[in-house]
Amino acid sequence: MTLSTPPEGRNRQWLVRANPALDELVGPEHFDLVEVPVPSPASGQVLLRTLCLGTSPAQRGYISKTKSMHEKAPLGSVMRGRGVAEVAASRHADFEPGDQVMATTGWQDYVVVTPVQQGVLSTRKLANPSLAPSLNLGILGAAGLTAYFGLSDVANLAPGNTVVISAGAGGIGSCAIQVARCLGAGRIVGIAGGRKKSAWMTDYLGATAAIDYKNENVGAALDRHCPEGIDVFFDNVGGPQLEAALERLKLGARVAICGYIATDYTDTPAGPKNYVYLVRRRARMQGFFVFDYEQEFETAGALLARWFSAGKLRPCEDITAGLENMPMTLQGLFTGANRGVSVCQVGEARVRRKV
Amino acid sequence: MTLSTPPEGRNRQWLVRANPALDELVGPEHFDLVEVPVPSPASGQVLLRTLCLGTSPAQRGYISKTKSMHEKAPLGSVMRGRGVAEVAASRHADFEPGDQVMATTGWQDYVVVTPVQQGVLSTRKLANPSLAPSLNLGILGAAGLTAYFGLSDVANLAPGNTVVISAGAGGIGSCAIQVARCLGAGRIVGIAGGRKKSAWMTDYLGATAAIDYKNENVGAALDRHCPEGIDVFFDNVGGPQLEAALERLKLGARVAICGYIATDYTDTPAGPKNYVYLVRRRARMQGFFVFDYEQEFETAGALLARWFSAGKLRPCEDITAGLENMPMTLQGLFTGANRGVSVCQVGEARVRRKV
Repeated sequence: MTLSTPPEGRNRQWLVRANPALDELVGPEHFDLVEVPVPSPASGQVLLRTLCLGTSPAQRGYISKTKSMHEKAPLGSVMRGRGVAEVAASRHADFEPGDQVMATTGWQDYVVVTPVQQGVLSTRKLANPSLAPSLNLGILGAAGLTAYFGLSDVANLAPGNTVVISAGAGGIGSCAIQVARCLGAGRIVGIAGGRKKSAWMTDYLGATAAIDYKNENVGAALDRHCPEGIDVFFDNVGGPQLEAALERLKLGARVAICGYIATDYTDTPAGPKNYVYLVRRRARMQGFFVFDYEQEFETAGALLARWFSAGKLRPCEDITAGLENMPMTLQGLFTGANRGVSVCQVGEARVRRKV
Repeated sequence: MTLSTPPEGRNRQWLVRANPALDELVGPEHFDLVEVPVPSPASGQVLLRTLCLGTSPAQRGYISKTKSMHEKAPLGSVMRGRGVAEVAASRHADFEPGDQVMATTGWQDYVVVTPVQQGVLSTRKLANPSLAPSLNLGILGAAGLTAYFGLSDVANLAPGNTVVISAGAGGIGSCAIQVARCLGAGRIVGIAGGRKKSAWMTDYLGATAAIDYKNENVGAALDRHCPEGIDVFFDNVGGPQLEAALERLKLGARVAICGYIATDYTDTPAGPKNYVYLVRRRARMQGFFVFDYEQEFETAGALLARWFSAGKLRPCEDITAGLENMPMTLQGLFTGANRGVSVCQVGEARVRRKV
């Protein structure tokens, strides 16, 4: 992978230029790429060099005018985002050049951070620095943790359960298929658009069956693949797929609402008109947010890492190269371009060992 | 109360005549009142004389053409319903004339039942025969139990919680306001239509505040009465009231879906279009059905009876007189005619003590 790099001593930044309209795809026209000098760390601070950046549908919400649960990124500011970075220079006793960390770097090559702010550690060293950095944004990072807490805690997945996952070839979905398998699900059905993604869900991620919503009737396919109904629906999508699943819930089923990308482009989204199935099937539907589980990240992350070492979890990151492609990488989440956890590779580790 | 009675030896029955259309109110035109001889019990059977009958929105579903979770009542059959009855004649060792029982009597004066069928006791003697029979269809019956399990088990009501109850002057709602009070809710807001019902919720049932949805904006009123948001929403209605509540949930809130009368008249009801608040507030929405808790009825019923004896629960039955008024009593549930648990008084106890 050949990566573009900024001139020596310079830092490229993507600034927020404009708010996408309600029905507008997010893209390069909403950002400005600028170049500024690399900043210097003050005492207690660290200079980070970005290695890779994560993306998430929530990031559109940072700059859209719609209500969202996340803080907005103001016009003219560096676009907010998390990523894996290498410590380039340190004036903090706990960090030294070459350390790899997870941090809120923003969409830029370099950032100065204060690792501990008001007693809170905002910049963490990677638990598994020997692995590819992108894994920490994918199956071993927030995506994998979201899948894990959504399935185990929110949906109470029990061994043998029939689990259906929408956007099963998306970032969280591709982790959820794999984590459901590790948790002992009896039957795992992934829903995605297109034959390639469908094949990837069964052949690579280990889903029992795949539904291609672009070429199949989702309800009929669910009837075929889940003849006894659904115990757990892990939803990233909303809309008609959620409705199709609700009608096929088993008694006592659980619906974990992780996302609702199908409703992101409208001010008056259609709610699940058949939510009365929650009564008919004595089922529950529950929303969650992975950072509510922050206290348990270390334990759960270690479990994911053990599954990974044992070969039960596979890398499922979809890596784009180059900071200049960040806006299109984000757009891809809304056009179905990515397969797996969308990550943008920005730089390569330079410092191989302790200085 | 003067009650119409059938001629000696005759039994009046309401038979299902027609299925109401999707958008049609249920009413007398869907039933035929006929008169047949009083049946005789065979060995192991009991002849019951109906004292009072309960009503429920679910009964419209028994005869409508829409999908519902309940078994349908076929055209020409006696309309199904539960009530309190007196044993008029017994050929079963465990029952004797004068015993008061809860049974699936149907809409008629007399019925012969087999109290134990396939090992299941379908006809139960009242735990509190000294109380007015109608209480067993109201605050001490299925309505009170529905409120109790919905609030305590489904919604995990904790002392101090802010609880909002839609259709708070309806059958289940009027019980829920009272039960929420007994469970230690900090603030109880009932929603109902009209000033009379609103006053009844606060002055008689003990709600902290009432919202009259016919004369107030529900959202603005919720903001005023629940400035810190809602912990528990007990929903009997669906539609815009559910949406108003969803937007005002606290973090970790619980929505117990008991009914959805607002959506009963349409084939394509509007789902809660802002269900994404379940994610924003990490909240859950769960449906339930009181008969799933049948194993716990005795314990919970005894608790309700203790609260009643202690004066913490009040009768909240709305009693109509006369079997001939049964169809209009059912209709009243959909026009807002009733205040409290709608019960139809059909007969009066005759046998005062053991024969």
